[in-house]
Amino acid sequence: MTDLIPRIQQLAAAHAADTVAIRQHLHAHPELSFEEVNTAAFVKKELEKLGLKPQPLAGTGVVALIEGQPGGPTIALRADMDALPINEASDVPYKSTNPGVMHACGHDVHTASLLGAARILTALKGEFKGNIKLMFQPGEERLPGGASLMIKEGVLENPAVGHVLGQHVFPHLPAGKIGLRPGRYMASTDELYLTIRGKGGHGAMPEMNLDPVLVAAHIIVAAQQIVSRRANPKLPSVLSFGKVIANGATNVIPNEVYIEGTFRTLNEEWRAEAHQHLRKLCEGLAESMGAVCELEIRVGYPYLENEPALTARVRAAAEQYLGPENVVELDQWMAAEDFAYFSQAAPSCFYRLGTRHADGRFAASVHTPTFDIDEQALTTGPGLMAWLAIEELSR
Amino acid sequence: MTDLIPRIQQLAAAHAADTVAIRQHLHAHPELSFEEVNTAAFVKKELEKLGLKPQPLAGTGVVALIEGQPGGPTIALRADMDALPINEASDVPYKSTNPGVMHACGHDVHTASLLGAARILTALKGEFKGNIKLMFQPGEERLPGGASLMIKEGVLENPAVGHVLGQHVFPHLPAGKIGLRPGRYMASTDELYLTIRGKGGHGAMPEMNLDPVLVAAHIIVAAQQIVSRRANPKLPSVLSFGKVIANGATNVIPNEVYIEGTFRTLNEEWRAEAHQHLRKLCEGLAESMGAVCELEIRVGYPYLENEPALTARVRAAAEQYLGPENVVELDQWMAAEDFAYFSQAAPSCFYRLGTRHADGRFAASVHTPTFDIDEQALTTGPGLMAWLAIEELSR
Amino acid sequence: MTDLIPRIQQLAAAHAADTVAIRQHLHAHPELSFEEVNTAAFVKKELEKLGLKPQPLAGTGVVALIEGQPGGPTIALRADMDALPINEASDVPYKSTNPGVMHACGHDVHTASLLGAARILTALKGEFKGNIKLMFQPGEERLPGGASLMIKEGVLENPAVGHVLGQHVFPHLPAGKIGLRPGRYMASTDELYLTIRGKGGHGAMPEMNLDPVLVAAHIIVAAQQIVSRRANPKLPSVLSFGKVIANGATNVIPNEVYIEGTFRTLNEEWRAEAHQHLRKLCEGLAESMGAVCELEIRVGYPYLENEPALTARVRAAAEQYLGPENVVELDQWMAAEDFAYFSQAAPSCFYRLGTRHADGRFAASVHTPTFDIDEQALTTGPGLMAWLAIEELSR
Amino acid sequence: MTDLIPRIQQLAAAHAADTVAIRQHLHAHPELSFEEVNTAAFVKKELEKLGLKPQPLAGTGVVALIEGQPGGPTIALRADMDALPINEASDVPYKSTNPGVMHACGHDVHTASLLGAARILTALKGEFKGNIKLMFQPGEERLPGGASLMIKEGVLENPAVGHVLGQHVFPHLPAGKIGLRPGRYMASTDELYLTIRGKGGHGAMPEMNLDPVLVAAHIIVAAQQIVSRRANPKLPSVLSFGKVIANGATNVIPNEVYIEGTFRTLNEEWRAEAHQHLRKLCEGLAESMGAVCELEIRVGYPYLENEPALTARVRAAAEQYLGPENVVELDQWMAAEDFAYFSQAAPSCFYRLGTRHADGRFAASVHTPTFDIDEQALTTGPGLMAWLAIEELSR
Repeated sequence: MTDLIPRIQQLAAAHAADTVAIRQHLHAHPELSFEEVNTAAFVKKELEKLGLKPQPLAGTGVVALIEGQPGGPTIALRADMDALPINEASDVPYKSTNPGVMHACGHDVHTASLLGAARILTALKGEFKGNIKLMFQPGEERLPGGASLMIKEGVLENPAVGHVLGQHVFPHLPAGKIGLRPGRYMASTDELYLTIRGKGGHGAMPEMNLDPVLVAAHIIVAAQQIVSRRANPKLPSVLSFGKVIANGATNVIPNEVYIEGTFRTLNEEWRAEAHQHLRKLCEGLAESMGAVCELEIRVGYPYLENEPALTARVRAAAEQYLGPENVVELDQWMAAEDFAYFSQAAPSCFYRLGTRHADGRFAASVHTPTFDIDEQALTTGPGLMAWLAIEELSR
Repeated sequence: MTDLIPRIQQLAAAHAADTVAIRQHLHAHPELSFEEVNTAAFVKKELEKLGLKPQPLAGTGVVALIEGQPGGPTIALRADMDALPINEASDVPYKSTNPGVMHACGHDVHTASLLGAARILTALKGEFKGNIKLMFQPGEERLPGGASLMIKEGVLENPAVGHVLGQHVFPHLPAGKIGLRPGRYMASTDELYLTIRGKGGHGAMPEMNLDPVLVAAHIIVAAQQIVSRRANPKLPSVLSFGKVIANGATNVIPNEVYIEGTFRTLNEEWRAEAHQHLRKLCEGLAESMGAVCELEIRVGYPYLENEPALTARVRAAAEQYLGPENVVELDQWMAAEDFAYFSQAAPSCFYRLGTRHADGRFAASVHTPTFDIDEQALTTGPGLMAWLAIEELSR
Repeated sequence: MTDLIPRIQQLAAAHAADTVAIRQHLHAHPELSFEEVNTAAFVKKELEKLGLKPQPLAGTGVVALIEGQPGGPTIALRADMDALPINEASDVPYKSTNPGVMHACGHDVHTASLLGAARILTALKGEFKGNIKLMFQPGEERLPGGASLMIKEGVLENPAVGHVLGQHVFPHLPAGKIGLRPGRYMASTDELYLTIRGKGGHGAMPEMNLDPVLVAAHIIVAAQQIVSRRANPKLPSVLSFGKVIANGATNVIPNEVYIEGTFRTLNEEWRAEAHQHLRKLCEGLAESMGAVCELEIRVGYPYLENEPALTARVRAAAEQYLGPENVVELDQWMAAEDFAYFSQAAPSCFYRLGTRHADGRFAASVHTPTFDIDEQALTTGPGLMAWLAIEELSR
Repeated sequence: MTDLIPRIQQLAAAHAADTVAIRQHLHAHPELSFEEVNTAAFVKKELEKLGLKPQPLAGTGVVALIEGQPGGPTIALRADMDALPINEASDVPYKSTNPGVMHACGHDVHTASLLGAARILTALKGEFKGNIKLMFQPGEERLPGGASLMIKEGVLENPAVGHVLGQHVFPHLPAGKIGLRPGRYMASTDELYLTIRGKGGHGAMPEMNLDPVLVAAHIIVAAQQIVSRRANPKLPSVLSFGKVIANGATNVIPNEVYIEGTFRTLNEEWRAEAHQHLRKLCEGLAESMGAVCELEIRVGYPYLENEPALTARVRAAAEQYLGPENVVELDQWMAAEDFAYFSQAAPSCFYRLGTRHADGRFAASVHTPTFDIDEQALTTGPGLMAWLAIEELSR
């Protein structure tokens, strides 16, 4: 199939200006998670221009099917569409027109890229067997995650999806390159909310109180053992507490202390086990000191698995398309992504699209008010994704 | 001298209604620490009615001297005049007319009692040798304490004061009784302010951060040893942390954690030593973990010592005046009082005046919005203080 | 009665050489707790020389009654007789002839003094009304304490004992002086034995083990709160862990950790409460971490209370006998004594007998291999105890 | 070259009985680390039988060179020869005749296998270009490790070694299979020895002591943060403390506490950084509490890196020789191996040789007194190693 590569590259280059324009439009009109009404309408219209029949799913989600030649499998390509509650700080022509909302995580790039890939793939649909399902999902940034809702509503059925591909901007990698990692790539994430109840009173009379501040401190210290002693050291685990509020005064012991934290790892069995260890530890330790600890664990996304065989094929195909020097192996990443739900449902590969300029510009991290990209990535992204889909269908 | 007791009791009874009226006036017009302008003017006028020549001292403080027969020593009697930033909740006729300010610690009672004692003592000044110095002090409730300011401005000189007596309302004891304790009675108090600085960041990347939350928890836990291992167990010590603010989020490690606490004990050498232990512990422990801890110790009042010989004489004299069944020995009290400064400067005795009604009324603690007293205490208080002063001068 | 003082002092002086000889004999022939067979026989013989009828009690204990004039109460005087498993290091003429056993806690002095007092009291039995019960007890150094056994066997009955006096050597005070303190004087003591069971294994595989070393460390750290946060700061409490054995290796996690400790305080209600707190803390904390903690509390002696009224009388009488400058007030002492059982059963006073030489010799602490005394104390001890008994009977 | 496989397999089968006999001989005559005198003599003699010229190195080490056809590179094959101080518990015909010493880590198997491979390779030396260096090393089980000594003495020079292969028995894998993992495979190991010095004394007088037990407990608890907060969670780290000795008594605080532990990880930069963190933590934390902590870090073996490209070639070659179903990918292993020194000096691959029987026999772990192997592994081991060497030389 490699003879298709030059044609795809030509198409990607030809559509580049349009893709950039689409991205800038989306960037200027960001919408928060599960509120992507105009974005979805825009996507729908673009897909209809290609002769496709987009369908709504999971509220503001959009799905469309590109049917190639009969007799092949179905592969799904995924883009997420939601923006973040961040106020854009850069004074670019396409700056957010929605104050306090910004595409600071590159979902505008993901959506524009998938629309660009759709153009190429519809143009080439005589060249491959099988179907390409385009999934534009809502709410990646917010529990329970649009991916899980789309799966529940059947996005991976009719026709059944064999594999899923997704991409994510990566400001630490220059545009023109991609990075990926087989196996466990991103972490599961759970939010922890603890309330430790004691008995407040005057700080001069400890015997009349039950000091929840000391109990809270013991819990924070003792919880380190979940990572340092209970976890398999070969399996990454993180437990962090970012908020602690004990709102008494110099000489006033408060009645309770409130704590927030996060737990992340890359294995579902251990994750469940760790939840049990943590619950037993926090509740039991507080009780041993005469206090009460209520622990709420808000279960977030699972870990993201890049299926090794698919990922090896994606890597090989990407090396063909970009040159081996432009495909790098990444380290694991303790951040979380709701693409993980797809990876738990079907063999999937989630790779990173370089977006930094070679001269060092566009290095601001995602989720910062100055995040932006080298738009060269909008040539690389659509073409590569189209090629990966076609190549995978040809197997 | 015991033949004076009936005369003092008659005088106290005769003046009781006036003393109650004075107390109710003061209660209705409370003023905050170091703002006792009207209270001081009122006190001055009352003293002038008795033919005394009150002098201002330490801003809103008032001092006057009752001169008895020549050739005797000088004893000082102390009352504090300031009120608290509390909104009175009881609907009494003499309810505070100054919203948000209330005599919730009985300083109105102390001032009215001392004015009542002044009436009795001026009436009896032919019966004793020596002088009685009346000290109405400002700002007991607020650092650095009006007592320390009055001492600095010479209240214990010209003539030199040999002994100091003071009293404080006590809602746990019925009116008509007093309580006292020889030796170390009340605690020194120091306010602790800690800022632990680390390096904030994403909760998923602990290796990039330096978590001040864990360091703060370790400091709170480790500081227990100041009391449990470094203090002499026979010397009461309290270390409490009432406020902890770590203001990140579930997945955001903050840059710093802020803590407030109090340290109290009853020995100045150990107090100074404990400050050093605490500083070394907090700063050193943070540093050992790569963080920085800034500890500010705001040094408050010293401990209050009831000089044993004087206190034994006060007890004996009080038993004569009230009957032995109405004088009780108290336990130590970990609260603090700026009368402690007098006790460090001259042999002093600070006793508690019962203010609860025999039927259980008036049991609300000091510093609560419903605090009030059985006004029978306003007969006991002035007469007893007058007797104690005369009896002590006669030694 | 004070006219008896010169006679008592003469008798004490006259018997001094004998008392020293007795003490040296006992010192040279020390016997361990509950093995005081020869000591008891010696005491019995000495008492019989005085015409008394000593009776055995509680194994190796000896009791005798000196009957004064009829119509008075009974006071008991107590000496303990056992030695310690210490090898004497001083090369004195009366050095222990029983290797590894030594009167390093002065019980030889206590016994010789009480025999000396017995001589004086029998000589003066026409001068006082009432009875003096001489109690020579075994096993003060070993649980359950000879005092508790003698009380169980009725030593305080027939005739009923009204008060009990005891004394103890004190190398920090010069001979010729005594020290005492009214109220709570010495501590209760309980021995703590903890076994923390986890699951041992290779130190490189924490996920396969359950590390009891970390759990033990958490228990030691967390137990500080019993003293720092649960105890009333005005009530002395000590919790110490002296032994910790985790017997793995650099890379071998052991199955269990063994800990020994002590808990001491001066209030029986709090003591019982503290036992519960400690049990809940140790067991609950271990369980919260997936381990098991077995805590054995071996309950030792109660706290020792010097009844205030009796102690005030003893103090006054001692000042008469020794001069006020030779009677000092002591601080509380966190050591434990089985005399505490007497103090719980009858109003008692336990005072300290100075044994250091004025030039500084004999300053070695009790329970050390070089402990010894200025034998001048053997004149002071018998005479004072005789006088205190007679004076108390005369009340 | 694959046409050589059947010949190698035939040779391996033909020599199998001899190889088993050699292994049984070695097993019956184990020698401790750096005392492998008879083992080395035995190996030397066996090599001489093959016409090789073995040389001693690093004391009891033995090196020999098989020269193939001229013009090729040199690859080294390594076996370790030392036994463990374990008393063999199995009653096998080849049971250790050296009581208390046992080949419980399979080094007899490694040595016999390499001798077997030497037979095959000398037989085939006309078939390959280049040299094969046979390295029989002493003292793998004991610091500083025989590997490091052999490297210092030049084992990788003259001729210069391009690659190194080694193998290790693996009782969790059936005989006939091997396992391996590219990249970081085994951990670095460092031994930790801590002495925490305080001031001992009576457990009843904490104010006179400085309790090293509490300081030690705080160090153990706080050290968890090295793994839980300072380490990159994606980089395995283990910190374990297996021995703690605080040798006081219930009421005796000891002067010091002694602790032993281990630190393991898989990255040399982080390892060095962790040593600094640990030193700062232990020393600084003790100092903050008024105590002293001396930390000795005995630096052990580095982490073991299986060079990815070589390991991929080894894997491919092994799949050719054994069949793909008999080559498995392993997880990382937190144990340590002095082969790591070879891996730091030259591109190396260290793989595991299955030794369990298909029926479940021979599952006892290494370093246990019942460890033994399915001797079928002695056919697999020599043949595979010979093939891997020839195949690698042919590249």
